[in-house]
Amino acid sequence: MKVAYRIWIDHKGKVFGDGPQEILKGVEKTGSLHQVAAQMGMSYSKAWKRIREIEQRLGFPLLERRVGGQSGGGSRITPQAKELMLCYARFQREAKVAIERAYRKQFASFAKLPESKRT
Amino acid sequence: MKVAYRIWIDHKGKVFGDGPQEILKGVEKTGSLHQVAAQMGMSYSKAWKRIREIEQRLGFPLLERRVGGQSGGGSRITPQAKELMLCYARFQREAKVAIERAYRKQFASFAKLPESKRT
Repeated sequence: MKVAYRIWIDHKGKVFGDGPQEILKGVEKTGSLHQVAAQMGMSYSKAWKRIREIEQRLGFPLLERRVGGQSGGGSRITPQAKELMLCYARFQREAKVAIERAYRKQFASFAKLPESKRT
Repeated sequence: MKVAYRIWIDHKGKVFGDGPQEILKGVEKTGSLHQVAAQMGMSYSKAWKRIREIEQRLGFPLLERRVGGQSGGGSRITPQAKELMLCYARFQREAKVAIERAYRKQFASFAKLPESKRT
């Protein structure tokens, strides 16, 4: 027996969670939304649409397009995106610890149940 | 901006959460799985199957069938079901408080974003 959860930020609907965080982290690392989308098995247009929708709901930009230059353009995250990513990462870590602590505390009497076998 | 989440107990797959808790609470109150299923807009057979699956995964009974008697039979929750419901309710409350506390703490800098209008 164990606890499981999904957690996300809502603002006029589901706005930010693990998926967008992964996209932004990828862009921060690679400088390319194209590359990140491909790595995540997502079309570029879908990744772009998703980020655009978040920007519209939150009212600030997450990605800046760099045009031309040595690398032939690409994307980079904005300072606001960086702040959002940091807040979200801290929040996720803190929530995870708290949820697991609450679970262990309240479900102690069920701890005897054997863990599921991996299938 | 606000936090949103779904949380559940996993044991050989998703095993217990808000839905089953609601079913058991209803049976505790009404003594009838038929009545609870109807109230939740669920077929009796679906409600029964769901409870049965949880029992099989957890390895203990949740509902006892009462046959006949003045009320013409019905269902009642077992002591193990009662314990599970109590643990789950306490866990849910504690997790909710912790998640909201973590959110307020980590997303303080985004608090200026206006709340979404109800649509």
